[in-house]
Amino acid sequence: MNVDGKHYRSIWLAEDGRTVRIIDQTRLPHAFVTVDMVEPETVATAIRDMWVRGAPLIGATAAYGMALQMQRDPGDDSLHAGYDMLMATRPTAVNLRWALDEVRQVLSPLPPADRLEAAYAAATRIADEDVEINRQIGANGLALIEEIAAAKPAGEPVNILTHCNAGWLATVDWGTATSPIYQAAERGIPLHVWVDETRPRNQGAYLTAWEMAGHGIPHALITDNAGGHLMQHGLVDLVITGTDRTTARGDVCNKIGTYLKALAAHDNGVPFYVALPSPTIDWNVQDGVAEIPIEERNGDEVSYISGKGPDGTVLPVRISPEASPARNPAFDVTPARLVTGLITERGICAATAEGLAGLFPDRAAA
Amino acid sequence: MNVDGKHYRSIWLAEDGRTVRIIDQTRLPHAFVTVDMVEPETVATAIRDMWVRGAPLIGATAAYGMALQMQRDPGDDSLHAGYDMLMATRPTAVNLRWALDEVRQVLSPLPPADRLEAAYAAATRIADEDVEINRQIGANGLALIEEIAAAKPAGEPVNILTHCNAGWLATVDWGTATSPIYQAAERGIPLHVWVDETRPRNQGAYLTAWEMAGHGIPHALITDNAGGHLMQHGLVDLVITGTDRTTARGDVCNKIGTYLKALAAHDNGVPFYVALPSPTIDWNVQDGVAEIPIEERNGDEVSYISGKGPDGTVLPVRISPEASPARNPAFDVTPARLVTGLITERGICAATAEGLAGLFPDRAAA
Repeated sequence: MNVDGKHYRSIWLAEDGRTVRIIDQTRLPHAFVTVDMVEPETVATAIRDMWVRGAPLIGATAAYGMALQMQRDPGDDSLHAGYDMLMATRPTAVNLRWALDEVRQVLSPLPPADRLEAAYAAATRIADEDVEINRQIGANGLALIEEIAAAKPAGEPVNILTHCNAGWLATVDWGTATSPIYQAAERGIPLHVWVDETRPRNQGAYLTAWEMAGHGIPHALITDNAGGHLMQHGLVDLVITGTDRTTARGDVCNKIGTYLKALAAHDNGVPFYVALPSPTIDWNVQDGVAEIPIEERNGDEVSYISGKGPDGTVLPVRISPEASPARNPAFDVTPARLVTGLITERGICAATAEGLAGLFPDRAAA
Repeated sequence: MNVDGKHYRSIWLAEDGRTVRIIDQTRLPHAFVTVDMVEPETVATAIRDMWVRGAPLIGATAAYGMALQMQRDPGDDSLHAGYDMLMATRPTAVNLRWALDEVRQVLSPLPPADRLEAAYAAATRIADEDVEINRQIGANGLALIEEIAAAKPAGEPVNILTHCNAGWLATVDWGTATSPIYQAAERGIPLHVWVDETRPRNQGAYLTAWEMAGHGIPHALITDNAGGHLMQHGLVDLVITGTDRTTARGDVCNKIGTYLKALAAHDNGVPFYVALPSPTIDWNVQDGVAEIPIEERNGDEVSYISGKGPDGTVLPVRISPEASPARNPAFDVTPARLVTGLITERGICAATAEGLAGLFPDRAAA
């Protein structure tokens, strides 16, 4: 999508066709900095330290990491070592394993001499497929926005609330939750996006806000506390979020706080949709609340925050009392009963086992 | 309650019996600073700039402000000027008007020479009454905690979640939502308190955490996003919040985000109680969502935050993208249907018109 009027993906190859270039998302929104990666260890650091984040982008980045590993040494030992190093970067990203398995499956049977080109081709295919999946998600979700817009007086914006960043920065391009928004904006539908702050890291919200600003889409940041009040007063027409993991029956595991917004949407009759590429569906899990382990992150993410000080430098500040510990669960599960529908690359379906199996009969368990 | 092992109220008279002393709550939790007030204008500033906050404390502070005004000049013009100046400090605090009306009603019929003593007596009576009301709220709410504790294995803590600060700092002493907690702690019931961060100001949460630390009550700060997840996993036994305004049918207007926690409590079968002194009941309002205007505060409260930097100084930092506006509704309304019960100084009642009228037949509209 657009940065200062120029089109970018979130990961791409430099002019040499070998160097892997990313945006250091930890520097956003305060600074737009790209990073050239030529060592696979740099890729591991980029994933672990969240220079890149978002399940689809993590997958594509890891795939390119395997290509850099093959550039160093295309032998079997190197192949396995690269796989293990990259797999160890993030504990819960399902796309990470999927992408690494894809690349390894392609490379393993090949003679080492053929692996370098094959690895770049596989990584590029993974990236391109992600772009195409997200484009299709947007085309499918667009219909929802068009329908709401059609029922409004001309010129009145469709108010969409989103939580965290399921934007183009979390994918290779388009994003998932944002893809319908970008496609609606391209068609000239008036929009206004409520951007949930998404404590404690806030990173997701600031990235979403930065994305919206880059496309001239009117938006406002709100605290995570505010969405329910806005819905009570008719100021939200539609909620669209992403998901890190979707169960076979349609439960959705996403950034902490998503569940509270789903409750408020349900209580106020606001449609609550979740946009997802089908690789995030975990066909082996049914009951998300009972079965999905939730990552508990360091409480310092709650106790400290970074921002730009009076002199313009970005620095961390301690915001909470020194004597008080903090707890920091990073995700929650929204039960399928609160989800109006799932927006996938194959269409929109009910958040039920039948709904998902209907769109993905080739993948659902018998 | 306790600060470093010493008992404090949130407002008291200095040794001279005239100087009004408060805690500058804007400096908490980073510093404990008291302020001596001898001019009524200082009192107005203290209320306007939130050195003191919380409806009951605002009322008591304004009453003492009238006493300082009488010390300067006990005449009729001064009486009216003091009333008007103090009334203009905060737009929505119902206790502010109530306390100022109480004092004016006492003073107006008196000859000016008698007004100074009468004003101090009236302000002290208002403060003492608040303490007694809150003590009774705690005694009534204690039964809820005792009941939950009795159903648990010995030694297992009762997990209580609260939002914002309805603590002793928001009142003259005891607090409202915290009063049952303090009384349970005094009886040796094991407790653990989840302290909602309460964006955007966070002040409420940090004050509550600071209060808990001062009494050795185990607690943890959590983001406003986390409560639903904790409730899904059985980690919250009871929610108790305060309220800024309660309607005659039991709707509750409280700090933004309270509604989302009430939805989550309802969805998970967690009892959701609201503690309130009866002066916060607005007998003329029924439907809180439709009838109560919600203060929209400056978006900078969302875009900036203050904290202690690496060198130990407290400074504000800009956390959100410069190009993105923020919206900041300060309160929301929790419909009575989500409230398990109201804890008042006269007992606990259902959050219904009948429930409230049953406890307050002398005040409910016919």
